[in-house]
Amino acid sequence: MKTPLPHHSATSTAPEQPEEEELHLQRRAIAALGHELRVLVDAAVRTAAAPDTLHRVADGVRTLAAQLTGHLRACAEVPAVDEFPGGVRMYSPVTGTGSPLAPPLRVTRLDRGAAGSCVLGIAHEGPPGYGHGGISAMLLDELMGWACAATGMPGMTVSLQMRYDRPVPLESPLRVLAHVTGAEGRKVHVTGSITTEDDLSTVLVAAEGVFVSPDPEHAQALFPGLGGAS
Amino acid sequence: MKTPLPHHSATSTAPEQPEEEELHLQRRAIAALGHELRVLVDAAVRTAAAPDTLHRVADGVRTLAAQLTGHLRACAEVPAVDEFPGGVRMYSPVTGTGSPLAPPLRVTRLDRGAAGSCVLGIAHEGPPGYGHGGISAMLLDELMGWACAATGMPGMTVSLQMRYDRPVPLESPLRVLAHVTGAEGRKVHVTGSITTEDDLSTVLVAAEGVFVSPDPEHAQALFPGLGGAS
Repeated sequence: MKTPLPHHSATSTAPEQPEEEELHLQRRAIAALGHELRVLVDAAVRTAAAPDTLHRVADGVRTLAAQLTGHLRACAEVPAVDEFPGGVRMYSPVTGTGSPLAPPLRVTRLDRGAAGSCVLGIAHEGPPGYGHGGISAMLLDELMGWACAATGMPGMTVSLQMRYDRPVPLESPLRVLAHVTGAEGRKVHVTGSITTEDDLSTVLVAAEGVFVSPDPEHAQALFPGLGGAS
Repeated sequence: MKTPLPHHSATSTAPEQPEEEELHLQRRAIAALGHELRVLVDAAVRTAAAPDTLHRVADGVRTLAAQLTGHLRACAEVPAVDEFPGGVRMYSPVTGTGSPLAPPLRVTRLDRGAAGSCVLGIAHEGPPGYGHGGISAMLLDELMGWACAATGMPGMTVSLQMRYDRPVPLESPLRVLAHVTGAEGRKVHVTGSITTEDDLSTVLVAAEGVFVSPDPEHAQALFPGLGGAS
């Protein structure tokens, strides 16, 4: 990059928060690239193009990756565009609009819970035509974490019991729901479900989870990337 | 594409199996593109490039996606390069070398079980520096399915109990194990675990699952994409 932003320079280890307008433009650009990458991912897992075409596209992909230079965040480093904990995570593999992996799941906070909506693509396929069982677990684990946060007790998953009643269709609008059912000390009990938007009464996948809010010292030890952030 | 292969043409709805050499070249090209896409995904979720760079790369990505024309498989259509059920799945979001989402997990069949190895990247991040809990579920759900197949009873997940003992580090070689512990009728009980390669005795995540082998008629109804395939 010829004109790196000061707080994105390679020498900055704890970038300060960008100004609001700048942050908005950065997030919009990240989401735009995320969208195009999701379209490319979909094309790549669906195409039956011949080997020479695939190799040519692979060369093009390599060239593009080389353009994403400048500061590359290290493992455990929280991106300057994120609000962690408890807010926007641009690159989350579940909710991140900047993630090529995410459906992405759009989340709405509820009272003691959260609702999510998304459409899975062929890239998320397990059995032909249906989502991978692990993708269902990702959607539920994530949304159940949001439900904990909605009660003021953001936490990490301790256990997750998944029950697969019916396969989850690809390319169909899905509704994910999560509700906190109780809490003991720092331990939070949460339930979750996946249905299609068309039939909210037929549960495809159900989950019960236990989450635990780490104490502040433990959280700091686990997430050194938080550094001096709030 | 100027020279589509006959069985990859847009009018072919049930492509015949490519010859072995051709299949090898096709799979190699798919894996090459998959590799470059995973590198691009990693760069995209790590870069702090300025908005103009991100938009320029997004334009390049859109141009590349448009080159993957010709036959695009429909939802539930099994790719001609796959062996389903029970074999290679090039685009699996867990094991597929052609998947931009997959680590990918490399699987070895064991007696009544399976072993897997992989390295998670920042694209798979949940808590800063660690894998998303749903990614652990994906790895285990997938490998436990392989363990069922290793006993001659490939099945679908009915329930999966995940226990998260410790966070799973990114950018570290991981070992995933799964073993069948029992069966009743078409129901198979399986256990699984994730450890680092460095410390195989410390379980990070443990799982217990129940899988069910569908009867042939049910399988055909669930997976019409199998068509007349073997």
